Amino acid sequence: MSIAISPEVAERLRGFEAPERLGFGSVMAPVMFRAVYQDGCWSGGELIPYGPLQIDPAAKVLHYAQTCFEGMKAYRRVDGSIGLFRPEKNARRMAYSARRLCMPEIPEGMFLEAVRCVTAYCAYLIPAASGESLYLRPLLIGTQPDLSVSASNIYEFYVIASPSEAYHSGNMRVWIERDDTRAALGGTGDAKVGGNYAASLQSVAQLKARGYDQSLWLSPSDRKQIEELSGMNFFAVIDGQLHTPKLSGSILEGVTRDSLIELAGTLGYRVHEREMDIDDLLALIGSGTCSEAFACGTAAIISPISVIGDAGHSVSLPQVPGPVSTALRSALLDIQEGRAEDPFGWMQQVEPASP
Amino acid sequence: MSIAISPEVAERLRGFEAPERLGFGSVMAPVMFRAVYQDGCWSGGELIPYGPLQIDPAAKVLHYAQTCFEGMKAYRRVDGSIGLFRPEKNARRMAYSARRLCMPEIPEGMFLEAVRCVTAYCAYLIPAASGESLYLRPLLIGTQPDLSVSASNIYEFYVIASPSEAYHSGNMRVWIERDDTRAALGGTGDAKVGGNYAASLQSVAQLKARGYDQSLWLSPSDRKQIEELSGMNFFAVIDGQLHTPKLSGSILEGVTRDSLIELAGTLGYRVHEREMDIDDLLALIGSGTCSEAFACGTAAIISPISVIGDAGHSVSLPQVPGPVSTALRSALLDIQEGRAEDPFGWMQQVEPASP
Ligand SMILES: Cc1ncc(COP(=O)(O)O)c(C=O)c1O
Ligand SMILES: Cc1ncc(COP(=O)(O)O)c(C=O)c1O
Repeated sequence: MSIAISPEVAERLRGFEAPERLGFGSVMAPVMFRAVYQDGCWSGGELIPYGPLQIDPAAKVLHYAQTCFEGMKAYRRVDGSIGLFRPEKNARRMAYSARRLCMPEIPEGMFLEAVRCVTAYCAYLIPAASGESLYLRPLLIGTQPDLSVSASNIYEFYVIASPSEAYHSGNMRVWIERDDTRAALGGTGDAKVGGNYAASLQSVAQLKARGYDQSLWLSPSDRKQIEELSGMNFFAVIDGQLHTPKLSGSILEGVTRDSLIELAGTLGYRVHEREMDIDDLLALIGSGTCSEAFACGTAAIISPISVIGDAGHSVSLPQVPGPVSTALRSALLDIQEGRAEDPFGWMQQVEPASP
Repeated sequence: MSIAISPEVAERLRGFEAPERLGFGSVMAPVMFRAVYQDGCWSGGELIPYGPLQIDPAAKVLHYAQTCFEGMKAYRRVDGSIGLFRPEKNARRMAYSARRLCMPEIPEGMFLEAVRCVTAYCAYLIPAASGESLYLRPLLIGTQPDLSVSASNIYEFYVIASPSEAYHSGNMRVWIERDDTRAALGGTGDAKVGGNYAASLQSVAQLKARGYDQSLWLSPSDRKQIEELSGMNFFAVIDGQLHTPKLSGSILEGVTRDSLIELAGTLGYRVHEREMDIDDLLALIGSGTCSEAFACGTAAIISPISVIGDAGHSVSLPQVPGPVSTALRSALLDIQEGRAEDPFGWMQQVEPASP
């Protein structure tokens, strides 16, 4: 594939001024990638100015949520070069998500070229402080205008980008959600699709009113096992070893989770992927056996959990951030930001393009 | 509220030519209603030409499926007048769906006025044969451009319309879905939100390949109890009495279901809302005790089920359509199309508007 660069791209990039406070995912880069799927094949992609999409009011995505997306980051490394973190993992997860909603897969080559292209042209926008990045958001939507409940026959694929600060700076207060669930067994929880996030909003609104930051989701069948947070996977440090919920079919397989499991081994920590009963964990925190808990994801990297709240009572973690979370966070960021060797071959360098 | 009528509406309506074959939900009326929610309140609505929406690529609806909708019909009655069927039920269900996804409710007055306005201006498009109608689709979407997983602070409300033929003409072959689920307990199954429909697409694609038309969804916790179809509620006739799954928290409370329960009483049928074990039902069909099964919804009215398919074997219903389904269908359509008295006060007349 060769990506067509719209003649307006140069001017848009030159004219862009980033505001002083970036936040996370709220300032959008001035260009985006776009490709269209119709009559069974993908059109050649193009880099175009960022701007509103023209979407028919009967488009499937608006009614039936036929949408999936990815979240990944490009980092400015200490030597000034630009690196993407394991983009092929996102490409494959997006293909999985697309299949779950009967959408055409984005060929891995097109996905990677699109992400590299947006990164290359937006390279000069990537902030340099540790934890900052260009957040990339590939998005696939079904746009056929037709009200029948069936898969679209037209799709649009975008990669938009947002120069961003770190996502969660502070420690997180997490609330155990014992009523709502974000995804069903046999549902879409292991795919990165819109409906899971819509379903999570009510819980978050309620817990915010109680002074908490994030919901801790439990297994949908019996609400006993820990699953994950709305946009992050969950880890606990028990007796100095790492424990994380095993992939249950209703949680998302995070790239960060996977990377931490590999990294932990090299740092000398044992990792257990298993069913984690929430009440057992609360008891282990109470007795001091569980010393740390944290959430991890592309956006948040590693965010230490300070409090786990429950209807009757809440428990506090003794170490926030604890030594294991801190060591893992540094080791991962050191690879991503180029301060350390990359023994796993996780980073892919992108040459900046000048329009 | 007073609805502003765009100056282009008259011309669009005059210029519109319906194709010979309408289908269901695929030909869109040339005008639509639109209102915007911002800074905590709704703008005055307007009737405007049907056409593409301008949606920011970072809009919440595209990523997090913050969308809910309704489906309802306006009928051309035998005396030539136009009638809406229980529109206040749809208004209330949409308010419920909106709350579930942390969206602002559409005030009932605005909802009803919007639906009446679109119906009035599109009155001349409503086909007259029995079973045909103007299908109305209210739609609420969160459009704030921001990638954080949180509720939008901007919403757009549309009512689009589609002159339509009857939805399912034939008898339906239904497949028992024992793996996938469309909605979780504690999820969004009792709200009319996009994610439920996205989750259902994979199952339907698989059963179509096996020669079936619709999935029969089971209870998400144990997949033993019948829930509903992807866009219809389920009824069975057992020993001459009607049985339908009770509202479990994960099925949609259909307006048609509710109306049939009332109507059945006046026709002398007992109705049981209860847990319906799928394997029990298969046995009752096998023994001939269950003589009919059908699905019901605004689009489909009543569609008889001819076959219920399962991994090992499939069972056929003896009477397709059976006498109870046929009697209920006629009684409902007679009220909707003005051939019978309306003892429940379900119909609301709409005066056609000429632009
Ligand atoms: C539901 C959910 N779980 C976990 C994650 C973490 O995944 P990753 O590490 O790939 O960002 C995310 C976000 O990306 C998510 O949305
Ligand atoms: C999931 C689901 N169940 C049931 C129904 C039937 O509801 P109603 O009779 O209000 O159309 C619908 C469609 O409207 C639906 O989408």
